[in-house]
Amino acid sequence: MGRDLTALFDPGSVAVVGASDDPAKYGHAVASQALRAPGRRPVHLVNRRGGTVLGRTAAPSLAAIGEPVELVVISVPGAGFEAAVDDALACGARAIVGITAGFAEAGPEGLARQRAVAARVRAAGAVLVGPNCLGIADNTTELYLASDRFAPGGVALLSQSGNLALELQLRAAPHGLGFSRFVSLGNQADVTLVDLVEDCARHEATAAIAVYAEDFGDGRAFARAAAAAGKPVVLLSAGRGAASARSAQSHTGALTTSADVVAAACRDAGVELVHTPREMTVVLAALSAGPRTSGRRTAVFTDGGGHGAIAADAAEDAGLDVPELGARAQERLRAVLWEQSAVGNPVDLAGMGEQNPRSYADTVAELLAADEVDAVLMTGYFGGYAASDGGLGGGLGGGSAGGADHSPDGGSALAQGEQRAARAIAAHLAAAPKPLVVQSMYPRSPSCRILAAAGVPVFAATEDAARALAAMTARGAAGPPALPALPAPAAPLRDTGYHGVRALLDSAGVPFPPAREITDEAGLLAAAREFEGPYVLKALHLLHKSDAGGVALRLADADALLAAHRDMHARLGAPSYSVEAMADLTDGVELIVGVNRDPRFGPVAMVGLGGVLTETLRDVAFALAPVPARRAEALLRGLRTAALLKGVRGRPAVDVAAAAAVIERVTAVAAAHPEIAELEVNPLLVRPDGAVALDARAVLL
Amino acid sequence: MGRDLTALFDPGSVAVVGASDDPAKYGHAVASQALRAPGRRPVHLVNRRGGTVLGRTAAPSLAAIGEPVELVVISVPGAGFEAAVDDALACGARAIVGITAGFAEAGPEGLARQRAVAARVRAAGAVLVGPNCLGIADNTTELYLASDRFAPGGVALLSQSGNLALELQLRAAPHGLGFSRFVSLGNQADVTLVDLVEDCARHEATAAIAVYAEDFGDGRAFARAAAAAGKPVVLLSAGRGAASARSAQSHTGALTTSADVVAAACRDAGVELVHTPREMTVVLAALSAGPRTSGRRTAVFTDGGGHGAIAADAAEDAGLDVPELGARAQERLRAVLWEQSAVGNPVDLAGMGEQNPRSYADTVAELLAADEVDAVLMTGYFGGYAASDGGLGGGLGGGSAGGADHSPDGGSALAQGEQRAARAIAAHLAAAPKPLVVQSMYPRSPSCRILAAAGVPVFAATEDAARALAAMTARGAAGPPALPALPAPAAPLRDTGYHGVRALLDSAGVPFPPAREITDEAGLLAAAREFEGPYVLKALHLLHKSDAGGVALRLADADALLAAHRDMHARLGAPSYSVEAMADLTDGVELIVGVNRDPRFGPVAMVGLGGVLTETLRDVAFALAPVPARRAEALLRGLRTAALLKGVRGRPAVDVAAAAAVIERVTAVAAAHPEIAELEVNPLLVRPDGAVALDARAVLL
Repeated sequence: MGRDLTALFDPGSVAVVGASDDPAKYGHAVASQALRAPGRRPVHLVNRRGGTVLGRTAAPSLAAIGEPVELVVISVPGAGFEAAVDDALACGARAIVGITAGFAEAGPEGLARQRAVAARVRAAGAVLVGPNCLGIADNTTELYLASDRFAPGGVALLSQSGNLALELQLRAAPHGLGFSRFVSLGNQADVTLVDLVEDCARHEATAAIAVYAEDFGDGRAFARAAAAAGKPVVLLSAGRGAASARSAQSHTGALTTSADVVAAACRDAGVELVHTPREMTVVLAALSAGPRTSGRRTAVFTDGGGHGAIAADAAEDAGLDVPELGARAQERLRAVLWEQSAVGNPVDLAGMGEQNPRSYADTVAELLAADEVDAVLMTGYFGGYAASDGGLGGGLGGGSAGGADHSPDGGSALAQGEQRAARAIAAHLAAAPKPLVVQSMYPRSPSCRILAAAGVPVFAATEDAARALAAMTARGAAGPPALPALPAPAAPLRDTGYHGVRALLDSAGVPFPPAREITDEAGLLAAAREFEGPYVLKALHLLHKSDAGGVALRLADADALLAAHRDMHARLGAPSYSVEAMADLTDGVELIVGVNRDPRFGPVAMVGLGGVLTETLRDVAFALAPVPARRAEALLRGLRTAALLKGVRGRPAVDVAAAAAVIERVTAVAAAHPEIAELEVNPLLVRPDGAVALDARAVLL
Repeated sequence: MGRDLTALFDPGSVAVVGASDDPAKYGHAVASQALRAPGRRPVHLVNRRGGTVLGRTAAPSLAAIGEPVELVVISVPGAGFEAAVDDALACGARAIVGITAGFAEAGPEGLARQRAVAARVRAAGAVLVGPNCLGIADNTTELYLASDRFAPGGVALLSQSGNLALELQLRAAPHGLGFSRFVSLGNQADVTLVDLVEDCARHEATAAIAVYAEDFGDGRAFARAAAAAGKPVVLLSAGRGAASARSAQSHTGALTTSADVVAAACRDAGVELVHTPREMTVVLAALSAGPRTSGRRTAVFTDGGGHGAIAADAAEDAGLDVPELGARAQERLRAVLWEQSAVGNPVDLAGMGEQNPRSYADTVAELLAADEVDAVLMTGYFGGYAASDGGLGGGLGGGSAGGADHSPDGGSALAQGEQRAARAIAAHLAAAPKPLVVQSMYPRSPSCRILAAAGVPVFAATEDAARALAAMTARGAAGPPALPALPAPAAPLRDTGYHGVRALLDSAGVPFPPAREITDEAGLLAAAREFEGPYVLKALHLLHKSDAGGVALRLADADALLAAHRDMHARLGAPSYSVEAMADLTDGVELIVGVNRDPRFGPVAMVGLGGVLTETLRDVAFALAPVPARRAEALLRGLRTAALLKGVRGRPAVDVAAAAAVIERVTAVAAAHPEIAELEVNPLLVRPDGAVALDARAVLL
């Protein structure tokens, strides 16, 4: 259900505490905005000196207003914040927006103050946004409580940075994007990112949720809320490099999360992850436009080969496929195009567009009709024949070297033909909806405006068009989100020794070779009688036992085992040892599966290539745990070294399904044991006939 | 020296054959442009029907002009092209621009026609651009012979695509870029890309050379010309994916080159390689601006942490480093900034810019002064205080949530302060030149214009700013280009058998283990007496001898060798065998070095990780051969798996210098043997104490 934020986004009355005539004060900006819709609800300005503010009588205190106020914005110096909150609650406030800074971001003392005040708000049944935030706005309820105006539209913007929100606001308009709501997250002392995502998911006027966050709070809950939102969630996130992680920490005192974990959570929750404001705008424009598909086979189409080649590369860079069209589709294209046109993919009109603009529409119709085409990327000159401006750069030329149109008469005929083609494209698209994105040198031309009005995203830059199409295809619609539920906690693990961890995993169905823990030679010989060699001997309770010479492999028989034990014990003096049946390594591949408990996102699994190359190649993939076997298999097949699993140089393929089943079990165990900080099976040997865990370890929190 | 293209770019007179009043004809567009500078030189219009064209009397033929013409543009239907060329030569033409299509791009017959006409032009001592081109322009000589206008400036644009040239022209103006020359390359039947790069290198008014090419012609010569140009060369190239390669082939019948080879040639020649028109414009803007450096340590600086974190990630994505600043630099920053400012890197004013815009300039001064900072990336709101427009997106807000400025008075004070800060930044930069790039939400603001006028590239998008800075730092100025000269051809290799190739490489100083080729058991036993075991036995003259069971390793003595030979001979019946001393593989890493002869770029070396992972990981690097040892070492150290060379899990580091020396020798041999299509040493075993070639093969052209 989520929290009720009605008082926050549609209050019956508002007061701005700290309202001021001094333009250097933030309370001036907020008060000015608050007064923009005077008829919608009572707006009270409060200034402790009373008098007039913005031409209105200001109350010297909330109490002096003489009637309850549902939402109170507090923009006063830090020392006065708690008193203002108490006044607001006394005045019946159901929602408080705390602009005042100097709390969690200022250190432990500020954090303690923040926690105390948030507790009082909650105890009173009210909600608090901030502190250290920049306000909120809701265009659907004419609520303007931030310094900036956000043009109305369908995007709810939840941001932990004021300036990035401003940049997103500036970037939105040219793409036809506007905002339903804006919330500056601040320190999330009470109302969290998760609460807001849940509320915006319910908010009818919100079509997409855009988030910039440095601290995810309960990241697992954020992922859950995003997966359940039923509308696109786009996350702008930094932290891939060490420098940006340093920055986020100093900026808001945020507990930053590894970029790998954020990326995995986004993938699992169906969140589109972006890295710059520009990319966010492009993705929002794409997701606000035409249909989406789960396929990624893209037809690239132009008139003038250079753009086709550039766009094909850009599409592949963005994760799309640009396969050669089949014979039938090529024949159909050939039937509507010139002899010199290229119909393989990229499709190139090769000058026909200039002679007959309808060929653009004919081509789009054939491409949309082809079963083997999931999406279409049109690129280049289209728009130029009807363009009266100077094109994307505001340059001098209006004509193309390849498709020049130099007279008013010719201009008119070609321009009209191009606009007819644009309308025909819109009609074809309505009849056979597939993602269609356009890159044009003349994105603001009448022809491109016709396409945009029909829900076709139009961009000036090739890379933007490709990124948009990627969001509309496989990456943006990879089926329903696959966000795993956390199992109920199991009885805590007590024995974190090797055999304790083995027993825990064994009981969950993780296969191991036979093994016995022994402390003396009698036990060793007894173990050797229980199963056949060759044997492995491991010294236990040593860190990095392998590097310390605490592992002996390929011990043929009991004698060899005994000799190895004597040698090892003399060198290492370990308190106990494990005698194990040596697994058959023939045609095997060593994998690794580990689960770490992230403070924000909970148990996060890592699977990858094991052995000596693990650290060197770092060929690993992440997912929120527990990881279902199907997802585990997909992760393994997506590794850079996945070809090793299929067998190279004549080796047989290994049993990836068996490895995936083990990964499911290991990650389920970790997810059910919140007391385990790290659980790792390494190596996980996968052979053509199955998978077996050869070693395991656990570390408690 | 290069060819003399004076008649092409600064002719004494011009004729346009095919000039027309019909706006649908290209001869109309070219003729209109040609008349733009009527006083500069005589311009004759030729139309076989005579009469008037564009209000002037048109000559019915070139001969009818009655005087020699230095440059002739031919824009007639295909069948008339050769006759028009002959007429032009008869008329004394020294340069011909062939617009007419239907030659090499139309198939073998067209190619033959094209070759014949180009030969006639050359025999007459004239030059020919095209055919199948869209014309040329030279703003420095008022020569306008293409349908589009190019605003004047310092960029020479050489393009094989008319529409991409148009897009670059449209993108240039907002970055303050203009063009010295434009040449549509067409089919390069006579005047080639190389000729034009050489001429533009000599052309004083050209500050940078921008190229879009699908067919490089003599790629090695292009690389050589670019390396020698003495000014930036930026190459826009497609072909990274299979689709774009298909496109280029169908577009111009071009012989496309692998993207790996193009990238290697660009790196070796100091050419900036870009993948979209947008990226090309960004890089041209960067290289036309402030100073360049070979360092990549970047200080990221903002007021409002979000932008700093995003820009730090973007900088690292672009190949820059964003290291934490040292204690001394942090102290110096601390002395000019607030307590809440972050000084680690990213540097964050944390609101101080709004109170005191001078803090922007103070910070830039400290960063430019720090030895540990090679370059500065300023990002975010700067420009907003003095902005009167709506910012980059044309949106509504002019004020920042974090740095709002809501009154005319405050606006004026802050705006003036910001512009003073911009002037101070320009002064600091003049005093301590280092690359400085700005990302601003208000790139057209007065403050940003001050910066731009001082040579600071200003961009709206973070990724563009980061890309620009990358071009100005390590990637753009990686020291002098390292383009290897091709050695004189050596006596051709005759014996491409294994021992023939070994002998060739051995004579060049490539170390191999002792080996003898034998054809019978007596020879085998004699070989075994020559050097000690363990031995390797290889069956010769078999393809994939390893997969076929034609290699036996670790043969302890002569008996084992004999047994292996009998077994192998019975199975494979190979005509001869190689008996070799088995190398000690302990602590070794297997590398691969191969050289392929590219039809455009000549011998191209590939080095990488050898063994079973070669094909799986494709962890390889390319360079034009011969590869000097220093470059070879850099290539090896740049591999993804380079950590293996330093020793992992307690293994000792291997002798990379020895491996690099072998690579130098192998690639030098290949470069000296133009008859060798492929030469490969695989594996090249590198151990802590040296490197040795364990196998080799060659394929002749």
